[in-house]
Amino acid sequence: MTYRDAGVDIDAANEAVRRMGDYVRSTFTPGVLTDVGSFGGMFSLAGLSAYQSPVLVSSIDGVGTKLKVAVLVGKHDTIGRDLVNHCVNDILVQGARPLFFLDYFATGKLSPSVVVDVVKGLAEACREAGCALIGGETAEMPGLYAEGDYDLAGCIVGVVDQHRIVDGSRIEPGDTVVGLASSGLHTNGYSLARRVLLEAGENSLSPYEHIPALGRTLSEELLIPHRCYAPAVLPLLDEFDIRGMAHVTGGGFYDNIPRILPADCSVTIERRTWPIPPIFTLIQERGNVPEPEMYRTFNMGIGFILIVAPEQAPLLAHRLNAVGESAYIIGSVHRGVHEVDIV
Amino acid sequence: MTYRDAGVDIDAANEAVRRMGDYVRSTFTPGVLTDVGSFGGMFSLAGLSAYQSPVLVSSIDGVGTKLKVAVLVGKHDTIGRDLVNHCVNDILVQGARPLFFLDYFATGKLSPSVVVDVVKGLAEACREAGCALIGGETAEMPGLYAEGDYDLAGCIVGVVDQHRIVDGSRIEPGDTVVGLASSGLHTNGYSLARRVLLEAGENSLSPYEHIPALGRTLSEELLIPHRCYAPAVLPLLDEFDIRGMAHVTGGGFYDNIPRILPADCSVTIERRTWPIPPIFTLIQERGNVPEPEMYRTFNMGIGFILIVAPEQAPLLAHRLNAVGESAYIIGSVHRGVHEVDIV
Repeated sequence: MTYRDAGVDIDAANEAVRRMGDYVRSTFTPGVLTDVGSFGGMFSLAGLSAYQSPVLVSSIDGVGTKLKVAVLVGKHDTIGRDLVNHCVNDILVQGARPLFFLDYFATGKLSPSVVVDVVKGLAEACREAGCALIGGETAEMPGLYAEGDYDLAGCIVGVVDQHRIVDGSRIEPGDTVVGLASSGLHTNGYSLARRVLLEAGENSLSPYEHIPALGRTLSEELLIPHRCYAPAVLPLLDEFDIRGMAHVTGGGFYDNIPRILPADCSVTIERRTWPIPPIFTLIQERGNVPEPEMYRTFNMGIGFILIVAPEQAPLLAHRLNAVGESAYIIGSVHRGVHEVDIV
Repeated sequence: MTYRDAGVDIDAANEAVRRMGDYVRSTFTPGVLTDVGSFGGMFSLAGLSAYQSPVLVSSIDGVGTKLKVAVLVGKHDTIGRDLVNHCVNDILVQGARPLFFLDYFATGKLSPSVVVDVVKGLAEACREAGCALIGGETAEMPGLYAEGDYDLAGCIVGVVDQHRIVDGSRIEPGDTVVGLASSGLHTNGYSLARRVLLEAGENSLSPYEHIPALGRTLSEELLIPHRCYAPAVLPLLDEFDIRGMAHVTGGGFYDNIPRILPADCSVTIERRTWPIPPIFTLIQERGNVPEPEMYRTFNMGIGFILIVAPEQAPLLAHRLNAVGESAYIIGSVHRGVHEVDIV
């Protein structure tokens, strides 16, 4: 009996690591002090000398069962982008810019070509965000994952100067909520979306069928990468007094906006202020999903929100539109009991 | 159709987060600026003012199929300790002390009590290592994991002063290899161990059977937590000129020691210099596992190695023994082609 007989092929893992090397190195920024394969990834803080009081901001996340769509159609080179962009947005909420990223890939039987495609997507998104991919783990765990399945998680570390942390504490009644369009489902609600669209028995849609309302096939729609808001938002943190930001992820508006609201504030979102993308309508109609459940599960077309004083909102939206975002004034803050109302 | 109908219960996740809060907060160190539940965990670098040129050292890892043993016997309060200790050791290799940790827990159907037990173990180990648990993700992914199964990964960030990085570059022929005893299998080789001991058909052992050679039941043996070497080793980095360290994880001696060796050095390990713990003998005999395969898959009783000049080795071993480690002089460095020989 050998380790390979028991389902773990260290040579396959080594081959994957060798083949992903160039992608990983393409993300390296001047702070990176280690090459691929060291025990810990090393990142020098020497480049942060302009920060008065640097604070690290970190987040760990996965991509949920969007993975199952990638596996279903055998397309693995964008799921890494989903993961990185999700994490970049999570720390952008507090005003942080990314420094480095580490990924965890776990599967039942390691396919080097799948891992390499996943890492290619991770590396592309890291490069675009100026974030070094300095570590990772590729785990072969026979018996935990079904054939072809895998899980993917990642951890980001970024930095913000302490006096520039955006934490929502200065939000006050009268402030305006600006929403940025999502690119689709991002990485939330896939268990419900898959159940309604792909696992509905004889009412199921084919992932390869062109859906006129979407203008593309269902799998193309479901694999559109999670949008990264950092390139548009980071440069505006100097120009505008942004009092709070939220990433609209699992739990939707209802769970995410209160995470940054003062205890005595509520938010009202007006749902007719932005266009609901057709994928959400498709899910709602085919699954007979109640409207509040849609807003609790999905981003409904708004992937990120910013809260500013009302007089700043029009120019902020204009600036965001000018750099390629679709920004909408979608609601306002009022005195209340820490709730979100969607009207 | 609702999200809950599709297998995702956001209320269960919120309950888990609420119940784990006190464990998580018990790990907070003065650098932590956020409470549980913020988008990104914030850690101030103000406490690092004594560092001339701080370098962050980070690592991400999982615990492999040791998880399956925890699930088999329903004991979840030590697997988090395995994860944290594994990660702490990975960055200790470069001389770093831990700053903070983030965990990723993914499962098919969320059991708040299992998550809370896992986080309890994470928090205990974080506290002992002086490492703040500042972030985490609890993901419910129906269809990806079988009932009761979960995966667990974590990311650590630590710090070392640049001029004190231990990277193996000064290792030279004649140096001595000091090994530290492991507490058991740690977190590697479980797919082979489980296959041989628990999945061998009518030759299988019961996880609950007392095994005289082990002095405990099989599941007790297999769940002994991964040993953390930081408390013993970190204080010695001032006193000794430690030229290289390696964490003996997946790939055993053969794959891990070369990660820190200069290209023109090899290492010879003398296997009769330390006692092989009985669990390894049990696996080898019952599985008829070839000897080299044992050393490529398992730590064989040595969880961590340090390389020093030969005149420093006896006192280093003495100091390590004095603080509760079992240290052995297990080998030496010689000119060679970047290999490990076990003789």
